[in-house]
Amino acid sequence: MGESDTPNHNAIVLYGAKYLRIEKRQTQNPEADEVQIRIRGTGICGTDLHYYSQGRNGMFIVKTPLVLGHEASGVVSAVGSNVTKFQPGDRVAIEPQRPCGKCRECLGGRYNICTDLEFTGSASRDPPIQGTLQEYYNHPAAFVHHLPESLSFVEGALIEPLSVALHAVRRSKLIAGQNVLILGAGTIGLLCAAVCKATGASDVTIVVVDQTRLDFATSQAPRGIQVADKSFLIPFSGQEGESKADFVSRLSLEMLDSLKTNRRFDIAFECTGVETCVNIAIHSAAPGGKVVLVGMGSP
Amino acid sequence: MGESDTPNHNAIVLYGAKYLRIEKRQTQNPEADEVQIRIRGTGICGTDLHYYSQGRNGMFIVKTPLVLGHEASGVVSAVGSNVTKFQPGDRVAIEPQRPCGKCRECLGGRYNICTDLEFTGSASRDPPIQGTLQEYYNHPAAFVHHLPESLSFVEGALIEPLSVALHAVRRSKLIAGQNVLILGAGTIGLLCAAVCKATGASDVTIVVVDQTRLDFATSQAPRGIQVADKSFLIPFSGQEGESKADFVSRLSLEMLDSLKTNRRFDIAFECTGVETCVNIAIHSAAPGGKVVLVGMGSP
Amino acid sequence: MGESDTPNHNAIVLYGAKYLRIEKRQTQNPEADEVQIRIRGTGICGTDLHYYSQGRNGMFIVKTPLVLGHEASGVVSAVGSNVTKFQPGDRVAIEPQRPCGKCRECLGGRYNICTDLEFTGSASRDPPIQGTLQEYYNHPAAFVHHLPESLSFVEGALIEPLSVALHAVRRSKLIAGQNVLILGAGTIGLLCAAVCKATGASDVTIVVVDQTRLDFATSQAPRGIQVADKSFLIPFSGQEGESKADFVSRLSLEMLDSLKTNRRFDIAFECTGVETCVNIAIHSAAPGGKVVLVGMGSP
Amino acid sequence: MGESDTPNHNAIVLYGAKYLRIEKRQTQNPEADEVQIRIRGTGICGTDLHYYSQGRNGMFIVKTPLVLGHEASGVVSAVGSNVTKFQPGDRVAIEPQRPCGKCRECLGGRYNICTDLEFTGSASRDPPIQGTLQEYYNHPAAFVHHLPESLSFVEGALIEPLSVALHAVRRSKLIAGQNVLILGAGTIGLLCAAVCKATGASDVTIVVVDQTRLDFATSQAPRGIQVADKSFLIPFSGQEGESKADFVSRLSLEMLDSLKTNRRFDIAFECTGVETCVNIAIHSAAPGGKVVLVGMGSP
Repeated sequence: MGESDTPNHNAIVLYGAKYLRIEKRQTQNPEADEVQIRIRGTGICGTDLHYYSQGRNGMFIVKTPLVLGHEASGVVSAVGSNVTKFQPGDRVAIEPQRPCGKCRECLGGRYNICTDLEFTGSASRDPPIQGTLQEYYNHPAAFVHHLPESLSFVEGALIEPLSVALHAVRRSKLIAGQNVLILGAGTIGLLCAAVCKATGASDVTIVVVDQTRLDFATSQAPRGIQVADKSFLIPFSGQEGESKADFVSRLSLEMLDSLKTNRRFDIAFECTGVETCVNIAIHSAAPGGKVVLVGMGSP
Repeated sequence: MGESDTPNHNAIVLYGAKYLRIEKRQTQNPEADEVQIRIRGTGICGTDLHYYSQGRNGMFIVKTPLVLGHEASGVVSAVGSNVTKFQPGDRVAIEPQRPCGKCRECLGGRYNICTDLEFTGSASRDPPIQGTLQEYYNHPAAFVHHLPESLSFVEGALIEPLSVALHAVRRSKLIAGQNVLILGAGTIGLLCAAVCKATGASDVTIVVVDQTRLDFATSQAPRGIQVADKSFLIPFSGQEGESKADFVSRLSLEMLDSLKTNRRFDIAFECTGVETCVNIAIHSAAPGGKVVLVGMGSP
Repeated sequence: MGESDTPNHNAIVLYGAKYLRIEKRQTQNPEADEVQIRIRGTGICGTDLHYYSQGRNGMFIVKTPLVLGHEASGVVSAVGSNVTKFQPGDRVAIEPQRPCGKCRECLGGRYNICTDLEFTGSASRDPPIQGTLQEYYNHPAAFVHHLPESLSFVEGALIEPLSVALHAVRRSKLIAGQNVLILGAGTIGLLCAAVCKATGASDVTIVVVDQTRLDFATSQAPRGIQVADKSFLIPFSGQEGESKADFVSRLSLEMLDSLKTNRRFDIAFECTGVETCVNIAIHSAAPGGKVVLVGMGSP
Repeated sequence: MGESDTPNHNAIVLYGAKYLRIEKRQTQNPEADEVQIRIRGTGICGTDLHYYSQGRNGMFIVKTPLVLGHEASGVVSAVGSNVTKFQPGDRVAIEPQRPCGKCRECLGGRYNICTDLEFTGSASRDPPIQGTLQEYYNHPAAFVHHLPESLSFVEGALIEPLSVALHAVRRSKLIAGQNVLILGAGTIGLLCAAVCKATGASDVTIVVVDQTRLDFATSQAPRGIQVADKSFLIPFSGQEGESKADFVSRLSLEMLDSLKTNRRFDIAFECTGVETCVNIAIHSAAPGGKVVLVGMGSP
């Protein structure tokens, strides 16, 4: 790795809770197996928000100043000496994880659970792999993918969370004609719903606390994509100072009764991480049905 | 089974090759586990055409006069004493096979390959189970399905061939984002293509001898269903008197070269039964890809 | 069904908690699709013990006097008019459930979760289907299986619980070379362990509270069957009056540490129904591993 | 890669058809991700025999002198700087292929069909990767596996062909209790049979031309491993000068009749590559059964 011909570039660097600085960083030439990307879009994940607001994400604490961002798209600006799949100018999106490539899980095709997984824009190791909230970013070519012309850079930045939804639905072995319940209308819940519709689900019901999220998603869905067939609104009527998550935690299984009026669901995707919703998912599944826990609860 | 209150009804009866008669048949009350259906639509299958034109379908020869038809929809007109799932007036479509329900295959959920399978409107046994080209027809309730209001009776008559396509795609374990090749643009080929699109295929290429079939299907597809992304036309330039099937049989694998220009296919569905196409399917599949033989060749 | 030529026979009938009587019952001729079996062996299931000691099994209460027993083997003594697969003298074992054969689950090959399932020797309906603790018993031929000469009638009575273990291992998709943890050394735990060994597990560790059960099973295993590779003993040191189940419930996850010393398990079969053990199973599974809950906890 | 402290070592080098020389080769230090192995056992594969007898294997022609051998076991003599899983003295066996680790197939866990796969001891590229018929051999650590004390080095050399059999049986999704047909009693056929028995097949029938191979395998099977339940001998009665393979090719499907006398097979493994046997495999499979083509025929 050496100095690049491209000039130094801007990066947004997190120094601690709510302490961001815009700095110049030295642009690096790509390593032999890497691609250098001029970043054009980066999504802000819940993980990024945790780092920003608290200076940490669970047990990972920001020690070395950290460039956040891992849901990214951009344009290839340089390629390493071994890279033949890309050339400068290619529009791309990235898979942000960096698996070891040698363990049982990697060799078996499940590199997402590699026990030595390193992750872009995360303090899971120190010094960290700096993230994509900067103008130039280098990434292993094996985890860079061509972005078709039909997708914008903003849409390209959604490919990483979309891959989470695709993986969840693939694990569920959804087949055409099945009925699906989605708990939660965050980014992942909405994407799971859309993936279910795009892969043959007959009927997708989504449980939402805030109808406006679903309405926004539905109205913005491009190219005639259908997000869900039905929604089941749990109107937020929390006590003073109560968060929506706490409100849902406080709900009893009685609200399940409404869900049970018709036939139960072949697959339930739990996308909130709230324990009450895990219970609802389990009780809503048809005999022989499946529950996929996509959301992560507290440890 | 006894005489019904409904009057005798009309049936189209095959006596031999190209010898059909319209006759009155005694309307039967449904047995305890049966549903009586006022037939509203019946598709004409290739099987029906074989019986009509030759008086036989392969080794099954029409001995007892036979009412053809097995791709059927209609309205329930009476139900047997054990039937609770239906009532008169219900719009329905049928699964025409009648498995034994007791063999290893039936108990294992694969009743389509029951070795004692009996089939509606077929001379596979004598006397045959009379088919659906008549005004009233009785069928086991377990193999009758509700037809939603959104589907017409004509569309309902396509559900049986659609189930063939659904089964083929299910066997292929297609996952979102895969590329598919369909060989043949008959009813089954077109339905396989549409099912692939509806269940997440990224790119469906269909090989056709006669572009008009695909164009017709595309123009008629309801509700914005996309039949295929691309078609690959093999212009019919047969010798005098040569059929399209013979023409295709005569083609060499050279035409494969065009198919190979881009990446190969994750799944190839062979829907013609022509040996040349089986070869193309095998050679077009990507490493680790799959070939599903849907068409049946000659014995 | 009518009176049989065989004379009346003895049956053990449960009238309520701890109230059994030996009575004469009228021997019935088999129905058209049934086989009449001269019972030679019946296993006593935990379910039978619940009925005997409490006059109920969960929410099912004995109202009509009930012949218990459903893990049974015997010799065919008569066959119904439709039955061709059996003849008098055949050695057989039974699958005790009686699914409807018509619902989505039955037609899909998952008749074990038929929502209209009826069960031999159970008060789940009233009047009940009388069980196998009697000299003659009639059963649907589709759920009767030939017992090879190499198996005794006592072994034949173990086929029903063995099918539970086979199903659990089949669901786990165990492949050759995987490491397995079994929690619990009751009949089901021991059978799961033996099935894992017989189907290719490299290393089976079984967690036992009472070593003598495992030792007995190992010493009795016929034909060189290996039950497990290793056992992990949790010595029972309960407080006065405490049951083994309560003792295990009281254990913390610390005992997990011993299990974690080496690599974790590809599959963990939880065969106790105790919540602590469910937790151990989850924490013992390797990344990407599986947990199969075979034991049923309290509602 | 530099000169090693270990002295130069002996290698068996193929210069062309039937032209082998024993030469000194420079012992190399392992690269950072490699393990240096003191080879103790190498199996002779059919591939090696082709190279030896014809100077080529199909389209791969020996240009640069080639050390054959890829089914190997030995003792670690040195490790590269990145290697933590091994240390000198460890007993090991190798997976001889070297996949790219970056393509769709590799990342999906199917590195055996990597399109850039390189192979030890093969002329598939020039210069070749030199094989294991030498005293020291370096191999990527990710494809080296610990050999347990319970296995000898000779048995360790059989692990590579065993992995072929394990893969074939895994692809077949064999479940406990199924009946299996194996066509061919070469190394792969015999290993497939043994793997089927070890993973729960009820009944394994092996079709052999030469009973002595099966008898030898059966008598040598260590640790009470059962190779097969039954064999079906096709006595070799070829015409003068005819090979066994040609003899089998000449056989008609009539010999299938004997196989069909009982129930057909859930899975048939074709381990000969002879077209007649492919036909037998297909016709011997039960309805819904499977055929696994393990043997490779001529192009």
